[in-house]
Amino acid sequence: MILSALASALYSAFFINLTAALAVAQNTEPSSTHSHRAETPINYGMILFPAFQALDVFGPLDILNTLAFTHPINLALIASTLDPVTTRTVMNSAGSNFSESVVPTHTFANPPKDLDVLFVPGGAGTRAPEPALLDVIAYIKETYPSLKYLVSVCTGSTLLARAGVLDGKRATTNKKAWAWATSQGPNVKWVPVARWVEDGNIWTSSGISAGMDATFAWVSAVYGEAVAADTANGLEYERHTDPSWDPFAAIWDVPGSS
Amino acid sequence: MILSALASALYSAFFINLTAALAVAQNTEPSSTHSHRAETPINYGMILFPAFQALDVFGPLDILNTLAFTHPINLALIASTLDPVTTRTVMNSAGSNFSESVVPTHTFANPPKDLDVLFVPGGAGTRAPEPALLDVIAYIKETYPSLKYLVSVCTGSTLLARAGVLDGKRATTNKKAWAWATSQGPNVKWVPVARWVEDGNIWTSSGISAGMDATFAWVSAVYGEAVAADTANGLEYERHTDPSWDPFAAIWDVPGSS
Repeated sequence: MILSALASALYSAFFINLTAALAVAQNTEPSSTHSHRAETPINYGMILFPAFQALDVFGPLDILNTLAFTHPINLALIASTLDPVTTRTVMNSAGSNFSESVVPTHTFANPPKDLDVLFVPGGAGTRAPEPALLDVIAYIKETYPSLKYLVSVCTGSTLLARAGVLDGKRATTNKKAWAWATSQGPNVKWVPVARWVEDGNIWTSSGISAGMDATFAWVSAVYGEAVAADTANGLEYERHTDPSWDPFAAIWDVPGSS
Repeated sequence: MILSALASALYSAFFINLTAALAVAQNTEPSSTHSHRAETPINYGMILFPAFQALDVFGPLDILNTLAFTHPINLALIASTLDPVTTRTVMNSAGSNFSESVVPTHTFANPPKDLDVLFVPGGAGTRAPEPALLDVIAYIKETYPSLKYLVSVCTGSTLLARAGVLDGKRATTNKKAWAWATSQGPNVKWVPVARWVEDGNIWTSSGISAGMDATFAWVSAVYGEAVAADTANGLEYERHTDPSWDPFAAIWDVPGSS
């Protein structure tokens, strides 16, 4: 009992010391990086739907998990119901039993209030036939006007396109799925060679892993480059910081890539 | 009703075609990459514990999720209980409410049978005082002799070290947490500059993002380079393929890094 209490106290002390160190690190950033600080977002949302792509969700979220140590931010995981949402797809004819399930915190019918930033992942589930995804698309359409930022990863851009919020805007998407994905947004100015595209307050990334570079670029724009660089160093992540870096457009024969 | 059945048929047809295409791609690999195929693993496990690092888990798993489309493999998510496991840490004095929860499929008391490969993530939770993690450590110790491969990401190596399976072996770990992490394994030959280290059938990676490069290198060694390259292209991921690439050792002042 005494040992347990001691261990618990040591554990707390460790984290308090670490947090203090992080706070010091935060306060010693160049003040130039604080230019947007007053307007920085507080409330984040991530959409989940069946057969979402795991890294589309957890690449961006683990960057933000780290940001959350030094900045007071909140996360809502939003889905059709509060049941766990699986990555499992109907594609798996190899006979594998290989998937993960994540627990939502909110539903489209009872969403978080005052959302500042909404992330939309892609994945095989974006191809599900109606009426699947209609609640996702309606939620994006309804929520976008009050958001500070909307960010899609991979084929998540097809859901933004179907919600109409990309009409007339520049955007990108997964390069392997380019033909199908771009067909979902005939009024979108699709950019064939791009790791990510920023147009107004909408950021769209290329496929899967590109979501991490897009999120770091977004963090740099919104929280300052020092915060983005510190976060990447903590995650031991080498960023691509040039939005036009995109060898995968040529690899997947995207029209306009060569 | 008819429209719904049609949509469903189109949906199935799409995935069947895609799977067929993937199968063709698989069959056209150079036969030299099939050398280990007969011994390739079937049953994978990923350990979960409170305050795991999300990308330590989902970086490797999304590579394997993709591999599962063309190779029959199974995943068990193993934790102390079947309750969802959270990334939430006690570190979060910024006042954030920012975390995700994942649903386990097995417990240490009732683990999967015939496990071939076990992945062990890191994260703040690896610092939890005893008796936390004792079941994780006992499970690693007990399971290791029957595994084909054991792979740790980030400070997951501290759990391998505490289980004794790294004694006398070369290994690496998170570079920011180097001093603490290496103190958990006094008999381990810690490698200060390494994206990942392979010693026998144990692979240990550096911090967080390094888990993806380590997993791709492992996939290349076990399934062949063509499978690893195809998977990385599908994920639009640029791999680091040199295990000695590690700028983060110097960034975090790891002794022996300069």
